[in-house]
Amino acid sequence: MKNYIKHNEWQIIEEGFDPHLNKISESIFSLGNGRMGQRANFEETYTGETLQGNYVAGVYYPDKTRVGWWKNGYPEYFAKILNATHWIGLTITINDEVLDLNTCKVLNFSRVLDMQQGTLTRKFIVELSNGNVLGVEAIRFCSIVDDEAGVIKYTITPQNFDGKITVESSLDGDVKNQDSNYDEKFWNEISAKQVGDCALLNLETKKTAFWVSSAIYTAIYQNEKDLGLKSSFISKEKYVAQQFTVDVKKDQSTTIYKFAVNLSSENYKKEDLETTTIATLKRVKAKGFNQMLAEQAKAWAVKWQNGDVIIEGDVAAQQAIRFNIFQLHQTYTGEDARLNIGPKGFTGEKYGGSTYWDTEAYCLPFYLATAPQQVAENLLIYRYKHLEKAIENAEKLGFKDGAALYPMVTINGEECHNEWEITFEEIHRNGAIAFAIFNYIRYTAEQKYLAEYGLEVLIGIARFWAQRINWSIEKEKYVMLGVTGPNEYENNVNNNWYTSTIATWCLKYTIEAIGLVKADDAKKLEQILTKTKFDTEKETSHWKDIIEKMFYPIDEKLGVFLQQDGYLDKEQILVKDLPTVDRPLNQKWSWDRILRSCFIKQADVLQGIYFFEEDYDLTTIQRNYDFYESRTVHESSLSPCVHAIIAAKLGDLDRAYEFYLRTSRLDLDDYNNDTEDGLHITSMAGTWLSVVEGFGGMRVKNNQLHLHPVLPEKWKSYAFKIGFRHTIITVKVTTEKVSLTNESEHELNLNVFGKEAHLSANGTLEINS
Amino acid sequence: MKNYIKHNEWQIIEEGFDPHLNKISESIFSLGNGRMGQRANFEETYTGETLQGNYVAGVYYPDKTRVGWWKNGYPEYFAKILNATHWIGLTITINDEVLDLNTCKVLNFSRVLDMQQGTLTRKFIVELSNGNVLGVEAIRFCSIVDDEAGVIKYTITPQNFDGKITVESSLDGDVKNQDSNYDEKFWNEISAKQVGDCALLNLETKKTAFWVSSAIYTAIYQNEKDLGLKSSFISKEKYVAQQFTVDVKKDQSTTIYKFAVNLSSENYKKEDLETTTIATLKRVKAKGFNQMLAEQAKAWAVKWQNGDVIIEGDVAAQQAIRFNIFQLHQTYTGEDARLNIGPKGFTGEKYGGSTYWDTEAYCLPFYLATAPQQVAENLLIYRYKHLEKAIENAEKLGFKDGAALYPMVTINGEECHNEWEITFEEIHRNGAIAFAIFNYIRYTAEQKYLAEYGLEVLIGIARFWAQRINWSIEKEKYVMLGVTGPNEYENNVNNNWYTSTIATWCLKYTIEAIGLVKADDAKKLEQILTKTKFDTEKETSHWKDIIEKMFYPIDEKLGVFLQQDGYLDKEQILVKDLPTVDRPLNQKWSWDRILRSCFIKQADVLQGIYFFEEDYDLTTIQRNYDFYESRTVHESSLSPCVHAIIAAKLGDLDRAYEFYLRTSRLDLDDYNNDTEDGLHITSMAGTWLSVVEGFGGMRVKNNQLHLHPVLPEKWKSYAFKIGFRHTIITVKVTTEKVSLTNESEHELNLNVFGKEAHLSANGTLEINS
Repeated sequence: MKNYIKHNEWQIIEEGFDPHLNKISESIFSLGNGRMGQRANFEETYTGETLQGNYVAGVYYPDKTRVGWWKNGYPEYFAKILNATHWIGLTITINDEVLDLNTCKVLNFSRVLDMQQGTLTRKFIVELSNGNVLGVEAIRFCSIVDDEAGVIKYTITPQNFDGKITVESSLDGDVKNQDSNYDEKFWNEISAKQVGDCALLNLETKKTAFWVSSAIYTAIYQNEKDLGLKSSFISKEKYVAQQFTVDVKKDQSTTIYKFAVNLSSENYKKEDLETTTIATLKRVKAKGFNQMLAEQAKAWAVKWQNGDVIIEGDVAAQQAIRFNIFQLHQTYTGEDARLNIGPKGFTGEKYGGSTYWDTEAYCLPFYLATAPQQVAENLLIYRYKHLEKAIENAEKLGFKDGAALYPMVTINGEECHNEWEITFEEIHRNGAIAFAIFNYIRYTAEQKYLAEYGLEVLIGIARFWAQRINWSIEKEKYVMLGVTGPNEYENNVNNNWYTSTIATWCLKYTIEAIGLVKADDAKKLEQILTKTKFDTEKETSHWKDIIEKMFYPIDEKLGVFLQQDGYLDKEQILVKDLPTVDRPLNQKWSWDRILRSCFIKQADVLQGIYFFEEDYDLTTIQRNYDFYESRTVHESSLSPCVHAIIAAKLGDLDRAYEFYLRTSRLDLDDYNNDTEDGLHITSMAGTWLSVVEGFGGMRVKNNQLHLHPVLPEKWKSYAFKIGFRHTIITVKVTTEKVSLTNESEHELNLNVFGKEAHLSANGTLEINS
Repeated sequence: MKNYIKHNEWQIIEEGFDPHLNKISESIFSLGNGRMGQRANFEETYTGETLQGNYVAGVYYPDKTRVGWWKNGYPEYFAKILNATHWIGLTITINDEVLDLNTCKVLNFSRVLDMQQGTLTRKFIVELSNGNVLGVEAIRFCSIVDDEAGVIKYTITPQNFDGKITVESSLDGDVKNQDSNYDEKFWNEISAKQVGDCALLNLETKKTAFWVSSAIYTAIYQNEKDLGLKSSFISKEKYVAQQFTVDVKKDQSTTIYKFAVNLSSENYKKEDLETTTIATLKRVKAKGFNQMLAEQAKAWAVKWQNGDVIIEGDVAAQQAIRFNIFQLHQTYTGEDARLNIGPKGFTGEKYGGSTYWDTEAYCLPFYLATAPQQVAENLLIYRYKHLEKAIENAEKLGFKDGAALYPMVTINGEECHNEWEITFEEIHRNGAIAFAIFNYIRYTAEQKYLAEYGLEVLIGIARFWAQRINWSIEKEKYVMLGVTGPNEYENNVNNNWYTSTIATWCLKYTIEAIGLVKADDAKKLEQILTKTKFDTEKETSHWKDIIEKMFYPIDEKLGVFLQQDGYLDKEQILVKDLPTVDRPLNQKWSWDRILRSCFIKQADVLQGIYFFEEDYDLTTIQRNYDFYESRTVHESSLSPCVHAIIAAKLGDLDRAYEFYLRTSRLDLDDYNNDTEDGLHITSMAGTWLSVVEGFGGMRVKNNQLHLHPVLPEKWKSYAFKIGFRHTIITVKVTTEKVSLTNESEHELNLNVFGKEAHLSANGTLEINS
């Protein structure tokens, strides 16, 4: 854990330059706009430790699988988001010395991520080895208005010298993924050329043949006037640059404006790509830096207007929740149903792929409440588009007749992961995908989604469960063998309570969904049943038999659901009794020791209780929470938020606050010592959940919005805004009262603290806490 | 499965050349002498498909571990037996055309492995593209008398031409392991030089710095006379050769004699190595080919004299058992306690390492009965020497206080394997190592081994089990969680019956062994207890508690021991009902499907019953055999032999014979389609067991040799010879009677068909079957 980020309500601030923290900061200060993104690398040369990263959404490479011991069924390839053209490069040479913070004396340094307007600013003063002292102020952003464009304003002010500065403004495509399995580079050059006053680099990915065309325009200003310098064009293999030389004087600022665009063949015909790239670049440079910045700030203001969480009295908590929300918006905008939310977003390479069950289990609720409905719907449609591949995926594992198993990790619908205990056995992901459909409809009341898309997916998933479950002659019950639950500190277990519970829920919900579609549109149902070759009588009666006779491990004496068969055979030790030197277990213990211990990475019984809360009374929840929380080491970033929500529900506000802080400042404070690899984007949605569902007690039950807000002791107040169906509601919670403001033209009947309440159109309502 | 090897009692014969079978034949016709060995590659150039392999015992390379997903505790390196200098090479150029069976027309071809004298002979007639037709007869062997030497006699006879032949006789060290993790070569050159009429190549392994020095001497004969040709010396990086040019005439034979030696720094000081190499070469070439061959034949005759199994009336079975015995002797001679029996011997690279539990579980009994006692003892001492590393290995996994976990795969005592479910969990290997000590003493009555070596190993192993087992508050029994049994088609299971059974047996036997050593030599015991810091009272009372309260899964209704917790939750299908297209499962089914099925790779309950047969009555054995055999797919080469032995014991001779054939002709008939990777050396000991313990019913019980011979219907008779304590007994079984011949000066009281019998010194005894 670290503590070098300054606390501030709207800004992430680093002061002073510590090269050992640089890779962490590169992650934390990352920029993105849903279409492209990058780590907070320096524009100028930096020969110190850095992880260079630029990413273009949807552009991937199928890297040949690498394993120690091949298991039948492993996928041939792992689809990786590619490290793409590095477009920010500005090689600055001052009187023949290259500016490089690794080699010069850094007198002063700050880095600020401004979340209000979505910009990254660096200011520093350095002394070169030739004695030249200069100040630099660099500001850049990835535009969320022109989402193929990024722009840099880089100002250099000599402090003690006159002289000559050379600027090489580049597009460098000779880049590599650090996690390349066979140390290969993944790009080939299509073209590298000068087009008027722009430089263009068009690259193609190997195997997948995506084209990404980038172009830059660079201008040099002094005294706020364009010097009109003509650049020299430099070109090397997968590299183009524009070079300028300019005379500078002591105390006189020289500003470099660099406009860059990155366009992908995912969105344009290849034959038009280069022309469109130049046209796009010309359009944005015509706007100019100031207008682009103004538009950026305005667009971010709208995002904050709709989705801010305001915490009074706790700057660390305020900064953290905004950071989480900011990074989620930078990662995914929901405009393109082919895209999804990678666990590291545009902030690192680790894990590869772009879609895990995190999307459905953690991210969907965030976007449901804070973004237009289409955003959440696009997340669901993404999986609908992959249904065919999910059926193929299941076939590879021996399933048949339209059973669908969604991959553990994917970009294009194909499985990318290759660890048998996860790839083949962590099948609960299928349940989360079904639950997301239910959750979307529960929240939006858009039942028509079932007929349009949802039911087909549900049928595929339900068929998978029905085939995956078998009858035990021993137990005289249906059982599910050989699975890995969300708690990945158990592998290949039998009758994992969570997986079995969500499996039978899927069967129930699919039967229900068939009924709903039938009631809405019997003809459409017939079409779906024909398309899926569904034998209603035979299949649903088998499902009903499973629902009736499924085995769930339970300990009657303790009154808890058992994580899996045999869980109580383990030596029962509590986390509080674990020596500190043994933590984190995943770094200190060998894998087998973790597996046979009772310790839990993230509690999957509690995950199930969180999903299906209405099925359990409070004392049951309390017993399971007490039992599992005391055995959970939270070594998954996805763990604390669910515990926070349940703790808040149970009135354990201190623990809920502790979990909140842990999840919300996970990356800012580098809790797990892994922020340098990239941010934990998907768990950031969990942070939001822990505020809104945790402290705010927000639920949708019986077709109605429910709130049950509580205020952590450390906070003076907090407020969040949610869009619910046709209304937009701000909920503000203070020690005295809960204030609800309806910004819409629609009235809303809701439930606060268990009581019916009415919120009129544009009305407000105050309820004593 | 294939069927191209001709059946013959003493020879393995291939007739006709099929390039697609070449890699299989290269394995089958392998040569070795315990010190070095090689695949049956061609001497002359071959540009077709081949797996070149030459190996020197004990010389390994720690290849950096390669995994998909790193798990804590994995070893950094995998020790691999190295592909070493290729010393057989003879590049033959005939009138400017290189002899290469891949490019010329093969008119006639045969390959014969003569097991009686340990030689490999090839004869072929080919037509070159220039129309030259020539015959070749090549005979070679690795001397078991001069075990650092190999020799080749290569005779060429032009059939339709006169002309010029160039011979390049080489040592090629520029070789690579096909299974190199990072595609590296593992050798560096120390020197490459001409020494008189010899050529020498001395190489060093990277990292481990073993030196292997090879030298050759080549002579060309015509009309049985040395032409006295002087060679040209050729030298390249890691390559030396002697080149000759000779005139040949139609129908006149030219013979090349090549003598080669390979010496390793494991056996000589590095500074003396090259000199000793040349001296050794001179010594063997002075003997000459004919004398070496005569000595070889004589030495093999002794081996056969002591360990042959003779089967009358079934050539396929006769050939097969001899092939198995032959390859075992080629692999391991037991003269060096640093060496062991790799699963592929000197016949391939696959699996790497050299020692698996196979050694103790399958190979030890073979060497006990057919080789001098020192051989088996050396196998045990090998593990004694690794005790310290086994303790370190256990410490890495969190065990303490002298608990020892022997590696799954090793050369030098360190773990090499990296698959968590095997490396960390297939811990039953520890039990086999303890059982081997018991087995050795049971067979030899050499109880002093305990005090000298055995007890320390037993204490380390017992301590491991005592720590690995935990108390279950649920079961109120001791349990063992998270293991993989010998049946590797189950991973990470709880309470594997076999592992739990052998674990508590180890505790019992260690307590017994402490008592035995105390009775023999109380002072020595004190030394051992002090050295191991053994707290007799505390540790043994804990062990006794475990022995008393251990949980073993049993199904009372079926009357069978259960392979593990939950085995009966699986869908119970029998192998006979599996569609043929699904076989073998390990090629047709994804790994998870195999895991959750009831199908068994090798039945570990039966393995336990085999080890501890005396603890179970016949009906128990029958019930378990019936239950597990019907669920076993025998996809491990180690599986059929145990089933053969139990089937024979239960009187199911047809099945026993079927299992015998399957295990004995596994490689000859390429049953599993993997012979090209190398032979299944360790399972060959199982073949021997299935004859001697299976059909012969040989056991040692109550300090006495027991026999219960039965004759498979297809056989006229069979006979085997065993050394038991101070006697050497030949057992011959016909339909009418069992004849016992004692070739020693010691009388023997034994038990045949359950009745006491007496065999006088040098006496014979006949008992009606």
